[in-house]
Amino acid sequence: MKIAKTYTSEVAKSLIDCNFFAKQAFYEVEQSIKNNVTLHHNIFILNNSAKNCNGVVPVKEKCYEILEEQFHWFREKPLVYFQDDAQKGGPIDVYKEFGSDTDIFKVGLEFETGNISSAHRSLNKLCVGIKKQELNMAILMMPVKRMSFYLTDRVSNYEELEPYFLLLDNVPFIVFGFDAEEYSPDAPILPKGKDGMSPRTIRKWQSVH
Amino acid sequence: MKIAKTYTSEVAKSLIDCNFFAKQAFYEVEQSIKNNVTLHHNIFILNNSAKNCNGVVPVKEKCYEILEEQFHWFREKPLVYFQDDAQKGGPIDVYKEFGSDTDIFKVGLEFETGNISSAHRSLNKLCVGIKKQELNMAILMMPVKRMSFYLTDRVSNYEELEPYFLLLDNVPFIVFGFDAEEYSPDAPILPKGKDGMSPRTIRKWQSVH
Repeated sequence: MKIAKTYTSEVAKSLIDCNFFAKQAFYEVEQSIKNNVTLHHNIFILNNSAKNCNGVVPVKEKCYEILEEQFHWFREKPLVYFQDDAQKGGPIDVYKEFGSDTDIFKVGLEFETGNISSAHRSLNKLCVGIKKQELNMAILMMPVKRMSFYLTDRVSNYEELEPYFLLLDNVPFIVFGFDAEEYSPDAPILPKGKDGMSPRTIRKWQSVH
Repeated sequence: MKIAKTYTSEVAKSLIDCNFFAKQAFYEVEQSIKNNVTLHHNIFILNNSAKNCNGVVPVKEKCYEILEEQFHWFREKPLVYFQDDAQKGGPIDVYKEFGSDTDIFKVGLEFETGNISSAHRSLNKLCVGIKKQELNMAILMMPVKRMSFYLTDRVSNYEELEPYFLLLDNVPFIVFGFDAEEYSPDAPILPKGKDGMSPRTIRKWQSVH
């Protein structure tokens, strides 16, 4: 896929400019989008035969797989602040600690597959992680409006959340809006839900780390 | 009803201490909760015959009615920032401008009746209003957990959102968690949705104001 739109807060820009780990995290997430391609192609071609015809989960899973397998990110990192109380907030979807014990840079990422309200919750969860210093940088990725039209009904898109990015001005926060490179009615339809997903063992965060 | 829990950010506390309009707004919203009582009683008695047996909308409507009729608040004030684009964000539920042309103090309020994701969206919408200086103070009101158990399924409660209040530290923001004074299986069941609501003309905000 390609990165069609990016929001990088001023704080995140400074971090990326002067901190190698921030720059590397940005690069790895960028790669997880760019390397998410259609089988036997070097670009992502989305079926556009009907509104909402594709599931969004396979798109997400592929990005996560790249982050886990190529770049060694972990899945489902709970925030200590929530004290394992799922009612307060679920784990961070994807997480990586850059650097070593004495100089750790912690990055949390969420790929938003829910509706717009749910996107607000993800955004606030990541902000809580930053505020409690459990994250040094937060990244949200979501489809742009053009692409979301052909994905699961009501999945939120970059443009919908964009009017709220001004709340992130002082937070080390990045939002990627991704898009397919091409659209074609002949491209394979992406299954909805977990149907058709090949079983895969995720690299879950263990508290021993 | 009674106010069981309150979050008042430090900024809001200072405002209430030194600004008469802020203090008055706080008082009026407090009154809209305290004066929301069961017919022929001076307290609010909630039917507790079954989980989720009452609708939340009548509770909300009564608070709004008090704010409109007793204290002259307006309904449905759009944020100029959203440029009437409902996709970006709906209007502020209840709104009042205190003071005069030269010294206006603008307060926005939302009574949250949606699920927890929706509560995050309301919170962010109010924060955008503050950030864009279209609001000088923001107030959110929601039932506490004990009360929400007997209200519409999945309606969000104060305790659920509470872990996120730290995001409001630097925002002039107040959250009221209200509760019924008494619970009884003999109290009238509050209808769900708009059923059984007497028709009422709301004091809608007009752009001429």
